[in-house]
Amino acid sequence: MSTWQTYLTTNQDRFLQELQEFIRIPSVSALPAHAEDIQTAAAWVANRLQAAGVENTAVMPTGGHPAVYGDWLHAGPDKPTILLYGHYDVQPADPLDLWDSPPFEPVIRDDCIYARGASDDKGGMITPILAVETLLQTEGRLPVNIKCCFEGQEEIGSPQMDGFLAQHKDLFACDLVLSADGGLWDADHPMLVLGLKGLCALEIHVRGPKGDLHSGLHGGVLHNPIEALCQIVDSLRTPDGKIAVPGFYDDVVEMSESMRAEIAKVPRDEEQYRQELDIPAFFGEPGYTTQERNWIRPTLELNGIWGGFQGEGVKTVIPSEAHAKITCRLVANQDPRKVRQAIKTHIEKVAPPGVRVSVTLAEQAAKPYLMSADHPGNRIAAEVLTDVFGAPPYMVFVGGSVPISNFFLNHLGANFVNFGWSSSDENLHAPNEFLRLKNFRRGLACYCQVLHRLVHYEDTQ
Amino acid sequence: MSTWQTYLTTNQDRFLQELQEFIRIPSVSALPAHAEDIQTAAAWVANRLQAAGVENTAVMPTGGHPAVYGDWLHAGPDKPTILLYGHYDVQPADPLDLWDSPPFEPVIRDDCIYARGASDDKGGMITPILAVETLLQTEGRLPVNIKCCFEGQEEIGSPQMDGFLAQHKDLFACDLVLSADGGLWDADHPMLVLGLKGLCALEIHVRGPKGDLHSGLHGGVLHNPIEALCQIVDSLRTPDGKIAVPGFYDDVVEMSESMRAEIAKVPRDEEQYRQELDIPAFFGEPGYTTQERNWIRPTLELNGIWGGFQGEGVKTVIPSEAHAKITCRLVANQDPRKVRQAIKTHIEKVAPPGVRVSVTLAEQAAKPYLMSADHPGNRIAAEVLTDVFGAPPYMVFVGGSVPISNFFLNHLGANFVNFGWSSSDENLHAPNEFLRLKNFRRGLACYCQVLHRLVHYEDTQ
Repeated sequence: MSTWQTYLTTNQDRFLQELQEFIRIPSVSALPAHAEDIQTAAAWVANRLQAAGVENTAVMPTGGHPAVYGDWLHAGPDKPTILLYGHYDVQPADPLDLWDSPPFEPVIRDDCIYARGASDDKGGMITPILAVETLLQTEGRLPVNIKCCFEGQEEIGSPQMDGFLAQHKDLFACDLVLSADGGLWDADHPMLVLGLKGLCALEIHVRGPKGDLHSGLHGGVLHNPIEALCQIVDSLRTPDGKIAVPGFYDDVVEMSESMRAEIAKVPRDEEQYRQELDIPAFFGEPGYTTQERNWIRPTLELNGIWGGFQGEGVKTVIPSEAHAKITCRLVANQDPRKVRQAIKTHIEKVAPPGVRVSVTLAEQAAKPYLMSADHPGNRIAAEVLTDVFGAPPYMVFVGGSVPISNFFLNHLGANFVNFGWSSSDENLHAPNEFLRLKNFRRGLACYCQVLHRLVHYEDTQ
Repeated sequence: MSTWQTYLTTNQDRFLQELQEFIRIPSVSALPAHAEDIQTAAAWVANRLQAAGVENTAVMPTGGHPAVYGDWLHAGPDKPTILLYGHYDVQPADPLDLWDSPPFEPVIRDDCIYARGASDDKGGMITPILAVETLLQTEGRLPVNIKCCFEGQEEIGSPQMDGFLAQHKDLFACDLVLSADGGLWDADHPMLVLGLKGLCALEIHVRGPKGDLHSGLHGGVLHNPIEALCQIVDSLRTPDGKIAVPGFYDDVVEMSESMRAEIAKVPRDEEQYRQELDIPAFFGEPGYTTQERNWIRPTLELNGIWGGFQGEGVKTVIPSEAHAKITCRLVANQDPRKVRQAIKTHIEKVAPPGVRVSVTLAEQAAKPYLMSADHPGNRIAAEVLTDVFGAPPYMVFVGGSVPISNFFLNHLGANFVNFGWSSSDENLHAPNEFLRLKNFRRGLACYCQVLHRLVHYEDTQ
């Protein structure tokens, strides 16, 4: 019997082909047109788990996109149970014309794989499955008990997963969650994540005249819905960058000076970052560094705006309607429901009297998440990452949201360790998403190692 | 030989069929995809003129969409020459889903014809052609000399017509222009137009990061292009409705108190107008009535805005770009080039430093137009309208722009009399455009009469 190290090398090409097969399923969770692709992807995951030697695999209904379960529980009752988590759904691929190759036809170039979902999260999600196969094939058993929970609604805020995990507490009961939906600090440096942001989302609808109007025949007499919308949007922030919604910052935990000093130690070349973004200057909340604004401060972003004529040329029209989409990223201890209500109340208050303004609250909402650097899960993960990458992980915060982390904590009492392989420059959620294959290989080694070391998890807790 | 009155009645059905045939040509001037339809419509007009008995018909190149010429010059050198004007191009038909029937398949309901171009301006434009046929068929000659100028670029601001008329001054030389691109006060009351507004147009482009970004990974650190655009748009007007661009009002001629009193006499049910628009309240420049804001004050309107994700659901993205389209309606003596430059300068000044802002000036520009109520052209037209409608025309201003009126004045020295049949409630530039057929019939009678009465034009000048 070969070692797991040899098995990983020998089967590398096949693993990569399987990743490509997985990526080719366009499992976009946000778009109803892809509902069938979501089902196909879920079935693919369950089959792949079974082929790896995982037992009791099942595609489980959630009320929305399904979750995939599986387990292998023969390590013994004295051994910890580790829940492997990731998501098989992906973001929409538009704007399509900015992709160099079709988003769902993976292309390998310069040891990177380009496709929607390559980095977020199919390339990560498949690594624990392949690691389990590797250990079972080379050692005949796993050092710890494992369960799997791969969801299909992460990119839309996991609306049904809260209720689903509440309903299946016993089935998913575990000591620790390893999340393959995570990333590295950069292409060659790992990190562990101490904080994740929460999320809330809403839409503003401004309605003016009942139909589009001739701007000459009716110009000057009514509030243009686009202008009213811009006035409302502009009222959400002070000119110097602070969010101007009353109550928005009320529950934000101010970070200690020592934690801010830790954050300042994490290396980041701001000028290079600015050049990568290709912006003339940074902009954000006064009194905080660029890093702090992204990591430990809540944000409010306009995701889309539309109204009136968008075609080529001139159309002298006063549009009937205008709309905008907003999401906020939240930090401890903000409550997404409270924050979005504060925004709605503010918008209704500033709405000018010449138009009708309504605010739609999106169902998606996630609480922010915090975890200590000294937690045994983080400590063991740090040892493995240090071994495989040759450098200790940075302890960081992430501006992104993983609502599921709270659901695991609330319903299973289990903490959530970042154990994924994407880098932030890999165009997540954008055209030309890619994953570095060297980190796909490192990720496989990390999962094989961490399952061995977690046998000591209870000892260290 | 029958009278022209009898001929109009006898041929009513055929005239209406011909109007429908004309409307079915989707001659949208703003959209390159309809370039061939513009040619088809021009040829249709030339053929119809020839069939009416007009001579020397020609589809003339302008450098853009062509103009259609024709003449009948046998009334004698002592008789005035009247130029008949209108446009065969139409506005884009979108949003298509708001039409009750396809925009280019005319439907007749309740003595109205529904289609794009029915009211603006195909239903108007065809009336002088049919009147000329009627007089030639019933009287064997016309009382005055006539020339025709039917253009195909009115809805995009007539960009080539200025140069075209400058180049063909002798061909189009005339004493007065009758414009079939005009309207009634309401379905049963005529009006004559003393002022038309000028026009300028521009677009704002805001560029942020080089690609769309994940709102978690990059949130809080940069100026969101949508927010920057909203800030710029919001800076264009004070909260109480005055346009805040420095210099915007500099050249505006303030109307005399007596003219403001005349305007106040024109009947208008403001509450009914508000209900027709279906808006909660009027809004506009302080210090002026609703009527004055539309008629004698310059306006600035947002025609369109777009950026980021517009689809269903939530997409947590910071968009790379955002854009907006603006048009202004101008009054005497504003210069469109000076006004648009003032707006551009203002936008560049208020542009926040975290984004790249550029302003594109559209080629379309028109100067405002003014004409006395005592002008002999207006006086004769008033007599005819009073006869046919049984009520004297109101003397009004129009918020719309007809750049061609200045071109005729500048190059031919000829004034421009409003002599068209659309009503402002007929959804011009909007879905479900229609024309009342009773006014199509009245319009035919008006053209037959006015050509008779204009034989005295020189006497009264």
